[in-house]
Amino acid sequence: MGSKIFVLNGPNLNLLGIREPRVYGSDTLDDVRRLAEERAAQLGLEIDFRQSNSEGELIDWIQEARGSAAGIVINAGAYTHTSVALLDALAAVELPVVEVHLSNLFRRETFRHHSYIAPVAAGLIAGFGARGYALAVEAMASIVGRAASGGSA
Amino acid sequence: MGSKIFVLNGPNLNLLGIREPRVYGSDTLDDVRRLAEERAAQLGLEIDFRQSNSEGELIDWIQEARGSAAGIVINAGAYTHTSVALLDALAAVELPVVEVHLSNLFRRETFRHHSYIAPVAAGLIAGFGARGYALAVEAMASIVGRAASGGSA
Amino acid sequence: MGSKIFVLNGPNLNLLGIREPRVYGSDTLDDVRRLAEERAAQLGLEIDFRQSNSEGELIDWIQEARGSAAGIVINAGAYTHTSVALLDALAAVELPVVEVHLSNLFRRETFRHHSYIAPVAAGLIAGFGARGYALAVEAMASIVGRAASGGSA
Amino acid sequence: MGSKIFVLNGPNLNLLGIREPRVYGSDTLDDVRRLAEERAAQLGLEIDFRQSNSEGELIDWIQEARGSAAGIVINAGAYTHTSVALLDALAAVELPVVEVHLSNLFRRETFRHHSYIAPVAAGLIAGFGARGYALAVEAMASIVGRAASGGSA
Amino acid sequence: MGSKIFVLNGPNLNLLGIREPRVYGSDTLDDVRRLAEERAAQLGLEIDFRQSNSEGELIDWIQEARGSAAGIVINAGAYTHTSVALLDALAAVELPVVEVHLSNLFRRETFRHHSYIAPVAAGLIAGFGARGYALAVEAMASIVGRAASGGSA
Amino acid sequence: MGSKIFVLNGPNLNLLGIREPRVYGSDTLDDVRRLAEERAAQLGLEIDFRQSNSEGELIDWIQEARGSAAGIVINAGAYTHTSVALLDALAAVELPVVEVHLSNLFRRETFRHHSYIAPVAAGLIAGFGARGYALAVEAMASIVGRAASGGSA
Amino acid sequence: MGSKIFVLNGPNLNLLGIREPRVYGSDTLDDVRRLAEERAAQLGLEIDFRQSNSEGELIDWIQEARGSAAGIVINAGAYTHTSVALLDALAAVELPVVEVHLSNLFRRETFRHHSYIAPVAAGLIAGFGARGYALAVEAMASIVGRAASGGSA
Amino acid sequence: MGSKIFVLNGPNLNLLGIREPRVYGSDTLDDVRRLAEERAAQLGLEIDFRQSNSEGELIDWIQEARGSAAGIVINAGAYTHTSVALLDALAAVELPVVEVHLSNLFRRETFRHHSYIAPVAAGLIAGFGARGYALAVEAMASIVGRAASGGSA
Amino acid sequence: MGSKIFVLNGPNLNLLGIREPRVYGSDTLDDVRRLAEERAAQLGLEIDFRQSNSEGELIDWIQEARGSAAGIVINAGAYTHTSVALLDALAAVELPVVEVHLSNLFRRETFRHHSYIAPVAAGLIAGFGARGYALAVEAMASIVGRAASGGSA
Amino acid sequence: MGSKIFVLNGPNLNLLGIREPRVYGSDTLDDVRRLAEERAAQLGLEIDFRQSNSEGELIDWIQEARGSAAGIVINAGAYTHTSVALLDALAAVELPVVEVHLSNLFRRETFRHHSYIAPVAAGLIAGFGARGYALAVEAMASIVGRAASGGSA
Amino acid sequence: MGSKIFVLNGPNLNLLGIREPRVYGSDTLDDVRRLAEERAAQLGLEIDFRQSNSEGELIDWIQEARGSAAGIVINAGAYTHTSVALLDALAAVELPVVEVHLSNLFRRETFRHHSYIAPVAAGLIAGFGARGYALAVEAMASIVGRAASGGSA
Amino acid sequence: MGSKIFVLNGPNLNLLGIREPRVYGSDTLDDVRRLAEERAAQLGLEIDFRQSNSEGELIDWIQEARGSAAGIVINAGAYTHTSVALLDALAAVELPVVEVHLSNLFRRETFRHHSYIAPVAAGLIAGFGARGYALAVEAMASIVGRAASGGSA
Repeated sequence: MGSKIFVLNGPNLNLLGIREPRVYGSDTLDDVRRLAEERAAQLGLEIDFRQSNSEGELIDWIQEARGSAAGIVINAGAYTHTSVALLDALAAVELPVVEVHLSNLFRRETFRHHSYIAPVAAGLIAGFGARGYALAVEAMASIVGRAASGGSA
Repeated sequence: MGSKIFVLNGPNLNLLGIREPRVYGSDTLDDVRRLAEERAAQLGLEIDFRQSNSEGELIDWIQEARGSAAGIVINAGAYTHTSVALLDALAAVELPVVEVHLSNLFRRETFRHHSYIAPVAAGLIAGFGARGYALAVEAMASIVGRAASGGSA
Repeated sequence: MGSKIFVLNGPNLNLLGIREPRVYGSDTLDDVRRLAEERAAQLGLEIDFRQSNSEGELIDWIQEARGSAAGIVINAGAYTHTSVALLDALAAVELPVVEVHLSNLFRRETFRHHSYIAPVAAGLIAGFGARGYALAVEAMASIVGRAASGGSA
Repeated sequence: MGSKIFVLNGPNLNLLGIREPRVYGSDTLDDVRRLAEERAAQLGLEIDFRQSNSEGELIDWIQEARGSAAGIVINAGAYTHTSVALLDALAAVELPVVEVHLSNLFRRETFRHHSYIAPVAAGLIAGFGARGYALAVEAMASIVGRAASGGSA
Repeated sequence: MGSKIFVLNGPNLNLLGIREPRVYGSDTLDDVRRLAEERAAQLGLEIDFRQSNSEGELIDWIQEARGSAAGIVINAGAYTHTSVALLDALAAVELPVVEVHLSNLFRRETFRHHSYIAPVAAGLIAGFGARGYALAVEAMASIVGRAASGGSA
Repeated sequence: MGSKIFVLNGPNLNLLGIREPRVYGSDTLDDVRRLAEERAAQLGLEIDFRQSNSEGELIDWIQEARGSAAGIVINAGAYTHTSVALLDALAAVELPVVEVHLSNLFRRETFRHHSYIAPVAAGLIAGFGARGYALAVEAMASIVGRAASGGSA
Repeated sequence: MGSKIFVLNGPNLNLLGIREPRVYGSDTLDDVRRLAEERAAQLGLEIDFRQSNSEGELIDWIQEARGSAAGIVINAGAYTHTSVALLDALAAVELPVVEVHLSNLFRRETFRHHSYIAPVAAGLIAGFGARGYALAVEAMASIVGRAASGGSA
Repeated sequence: MGSKIFVLNGPNLNLLGIREPRVYGSDTLDDVRRLAEERAAQLGLEIDFRQSNSEGELIDWIQEARGSAAGIVINAGAYTHTSVALLDALAAVELPVVEVHLSNLFRRETFRHHSYIAPVAAGLIAGFGARGYALAVEAMASIVGRAASGGSA
Repeated sequence: MGSKIFVLNGPNLNLLGIREPRVYGSDTLDDVRRLAEERAAQLGLEIDFRQSNSEGELIDWIQEARGSAAGIVINAGAYTHTSVALLDALAAVELPVVEVHLSNLFRRETFRHHSYIAPVAAGLIAGFGARGYALAVEAMASIVGRAASGGSA
Repeated sequence: MGSKIFVLNGPNLNLLGIREPRVYGSDTLDDVRRLAEERAAQLGLEIDFRQSNSEGELIDWIQEARGSAAGIVINAGAYTHTSVALLDALAAVELPVVEVHLSNLFRRETFRHHSYIAPVAAGLIAGFGARGYALAVEAMASIVGRAASGGSA
Repeated sequence: MGSKIFVLNGPNLNLLGIREPRVYGSDTLDDVRRLAEERAAQLGLEIDFRQSNSEGELIDWIQEARGSAAGIVINAGAYTHTSVALLDALAAVELPVVEVHLSNLFRRETFRHHSYIAPVAAGLIAGFGARGYALAVEAMASIVGRAASGGSA
Repeated sequence: MGSKIFVLNGPNLNLLGIREPRVYGSDTLDDVRRLAEERAAQLGLEIDFRQSNSEGELIDWIQEARGSAAGIVINAGAYTHTSVALLDALAAVELPVVEVHLSNLFRRETFRHHSYIAPVAAGLIAGFGARGYALAVEAMASIVGRAASGGSA
């Protein structure tokens, strides 16, 4: 469990590369997965990469992470802005969380400026497209590393 | 695909005719479907009429419309007011959208006055009960017709 | 009186087809009138179609409808967002009201998202350009028809 | 000029007695005029009683009051809540103003709780139906009387 | 009981004539009482005129009015803006209420523009100084008179 | 159906006893169920106790209650604060509803102070941990009992 | 002191059964007291049941509870929404507090949705009329019981 | 048409020099007209100077400008703050617009800080009394001049 | 009267030293009184030191100060944030006022950041515990001293 | 000193002509200076033209104007929207102030619609690019001229 | 270091005695310094008294206090209301802070009611002009004294 | 210029490692610089690393970057939340910008949740302490790399 990281993706991220490429870039979700896996491999971590359009299924997966993963990298998509239930799930499992977004939310509609998840995340990476996932995995690696030798986020 | 229209219905619309008839009228969802199908038939369109209480399933259906439908008529019910994820799904599939509601939302609680879907809809029809679906199908027909000969909403 | 419908148009609608065609389309107000009259004729209704830039004159016409019309289809233009006096006039004459707009107000400036008229309208049709008037006439026909056989909106 | 009072009525007050009697009572505007004239006669005042649905005409009349009236009793109807122009006209003519309303605005929709006119009115009488006009005339009489012997509101 | 009216005065009204005469005028509370009693006598009513700085005592008096008075004229002073308890007391006794204020609250600080009492008052008279009490008594007389011959506020 | 009560639990309540015990206490959801069943048995009621992380499934269950249960005790968890769809489902089935929460929401983040469900609930019990469910069952029993002999909440 | 509970009632609760029975039910405050005392007796507790219309007297009683009671059940009535002083008194005496209301405040005016007391209460019971007091006493019993064997709310 | 400029004045500006000279100065509207005409003459422009208290008439004049004027200098008076219809008219005629005010609106009541017209004006001149019109005419001249040799505001 | 200062203390200040010592310190109200009296004696002033939990009694005392005191030092406790009536009383007696608080209100809940009293106070001293009263007395001495030789706060 | 005007420019105005020419035009700050100096020369005034990116230095210059300039024309750039310190400096030196902006702030982001400086400025000129400075100098000339023969803004 | 106190003054305080004497009094900053030094001398403290118009320089000085002063008395002037950077600097140096203002901010514009500094200050003294600095020095002395014998604010 | 990156640090970041280590970690600004330089070296970039407490100096440096750097990594510290001038400077130089923060702003005070800089930044990295700078440099490298072969953020 020490070396597995859940990378969870929320609604509509399965359309990546197709959906509004001007906003989200032309990489597909498979490209994102590959970038995350490559960086993880360099850092001695394993990735469990998933996507769902269902808020309930995302909650199930976060709960599953408890006991099977060392941390959660999450791009909750639109649920970032509306889901208190995801916040509660992430708080409940007490694992380090890194929040990642493809676009810079703060350049978009006002309702995308608020994240219910942020208060339980160690940190946030937004606006760097698919490459942001590699940065998020590296950030998680340093948190998990620190966690191994003592306290955690 | 040119002649099929998805007509998607959100949570609790399966209770139509039973639920608060003073607000929503006494027509059942089957009555609504029939009205929509009749108008569609007159206009040379085919209807794929569905209902779900699950936000995730509605997103799946909207994504499915990409490639199998010419447009989406949607009554997202209560998700109209709370779902950024439906907004993103509708924006992603880049099909013309007509928003329909049985009641006039602006005569009800303030939180029903805001629609997350409206900014990606060509237009809105609200307050005419089951007959509003026939009007919505006609509105979609004219949009699809225009789309055939050039640009679209 | 049973078969006459007032179709009232507010400020600047006389510029239709000229004014910002990207927002309002290229149909002129005469085109709109023709579409409304055609649909009305099919449904056995007569249209009294008027336009004014004056809030006071629109109030006078709404009051005139009491006793001479079976319903009011109204596109109050900019007064939609600022006129409590139109709301009071429409409430006072106690006729069924259908609100229509050429553009989808919810895709425009925030101050256009609020309608003072909505709470006294049976329903709302917005975003379908000139064709929206035909839909509004049909919606009114069904309300008036129902009114004939019993209660009303 | 010392004994003439303008009593100005705004939009839809010509429908009084007809319009929503549950809110405004069954007295007509003629009944209101008679009540105002009777009280004025007792107090040695003359009434010039007018009604208009036009904001511009109400402004014209307020300007006309300068030089021909000793004070203005005004029920601006719906313009109470939306018209800065009436506020400016009343401030400009520098006559004592009494604001009157048939209904108690504070028991109605929130947007009726704000009066643009109030800051230039000596006082406010609301909720007493047609009789409120008699009270307003009496209030004006005492203001005008005080004005005669010294300062004013 | 049919002819007695409670006239209740809230905090600091005992300082009338002394306190900020520019705002409240130079009449004392005794002058106000006399004006109210004179008008009441003309109309065949009896006045029970009281003042308290205590919110609890004002509530006690309102409760006492139930069974001993035909109506309540109230100037709740500063409690107008802060006391839900006075609102509840007035609603509970189910007597007609007339709200009166010496100054025109709408020309003063914003926090004086809101009255918790207004929703249970038949009407409001503000800005006419001590004379406003005479108008309030007359307004109450007409309400009680109507009440005698049928329903009430 | 007269004696069966649905006790529905929303997202993350399956983690009870594990998740943030400082906030939610150390009882598990099985402990909660036992407390509810014991009190129900004493009062002659039967409990159907369920938990789901899915908003759609909770809606399905509420709809199922129509025709199979006498009332609904619901702890909607985080959906309390975000779900208009649950509100609509509860309103549609027209059964008495008791809202229960383990923690006192009003001591937590501001976004937990608002409940979409409250307007259709007979009442609310919050802050007493697992024992609150026993109180909720008793509250429901008294509502159902009253319902048996006449009207209902 | 271990077994005595103060049950404090705020303004207008002495009118219970008389005041707006549609909102508050037909039980009198004596009926409420009896229900509370019966449940207390079953649980080995003693009740000191009081009512006052005066905010200051309620504060005095709360302060008196320090040293003479094991906990406070409080229905502060309208002061719930306006009194920071009651909040401070309850915080100062450091006893467990249970907040109770006859009606479900969240179905009423917006200003009744906020409780200054809630942040110092262990929990809240609202909407169950007189029976809510019995539930509140039981909730207090379990808190006091826990307090006896260790920490407290 | 290239050299004619409409200078339009809204409600109460006919009272200039009379109305609140402390705020608006002692120049009359005729003085303003002369100042505007002098500067226009120096710059080879012709002025069509008008005033109306009627919102509808101002809209008519703006529409008339289309085809007969090269630009519009407008002091919409109180309608600046309340009229979406003037905004729409100015947007529709697609002429350069210069907004002018006699007083510095930002030193006055908050509701005078917002201008509906500003978003369609090239620029704003406020606070310089009658002389501001001369500056506005000069500003318009430079815009029209630039327009002649290429693009425009 | 020239040398007597009222030092008035509002609700729950009688619990000082007992109540939440982490917030308010361990000095009792008697300690506070001694500190105030010592500083007053050094400055040739006399202190009349009082405490009440009743808003009405505090108003009575403020009114009493008129004619018997040269100034008022007031810690209105929780009433600071909710009492317009105290504001009116302090404004009415037209004496210099110094506002004092034991804690720094701006480090606490948001509703404690607003003081209704501040607009009529010469100044404010907050956050220095019991010693703040000595500073307040000194501040008052300098105001009263200045008052003796001319104008005042 | 009577004929010298400070023309002060805030942050980033040194980039003029380079920075976002679509918003600010292609004139450089030297061009602006020349336009201001030319108009000043025509009017018998001398210009002291400066630019700084430092809020503190701008305050120093405003203070320096006291005693060495007859007025201040200021384009405070971004500090317009955030600097209370500039407001205080301008108020302190008690010279006439003309506020100028290159762009029409009201067509840009909402946070650019508020000016801290406006309440101490005689007037505002915005949206006319470099030429606005010439207009501002002329406006200042007329203010200073009036000042010479009497009072000033 | 134990006996040196930094007294820091923000923008425009160098104009004291000149700038708006009605608001700030006629004492100069030198007078203020003398009052602070006298009181400090009585209490065995040394004062380092500085003023700057530059936010950055004030931050530099606060950082310099770390290691060379026992506490900071600060009147940040206008930066009080706008500078998060000063808040951060004061929090970083972890010295006791006393906030002082010449005027009572709560009697002035709303934007002066908020202090970014308050949350890191032990307490606040406002409204007593130059003498407030003497009080602030005394308040600091008592904090530093307490700090000497144990913990600190 | 293609390979140099400015890394700019705002107010109080020079205290890093000293200031509130619980929030910002124990790394000093020199440690941060080393981490940034190491990552830059690996990616073939050069770092110009600076810190200032002065808003004006930060603006000067951003302007200097135009023509001497390929991009700007910026941690504007407290100016992030208050400086429109930094936003304008960053927009003006038209270089790619990466925003970095040591802490996760969204877990802190509400006023830290808003960034004026975000709308001109390609993306944001927050919450990962000193390591976030390495991630920011990598993010910048990929943007600059893309920029080399075509368009940019």
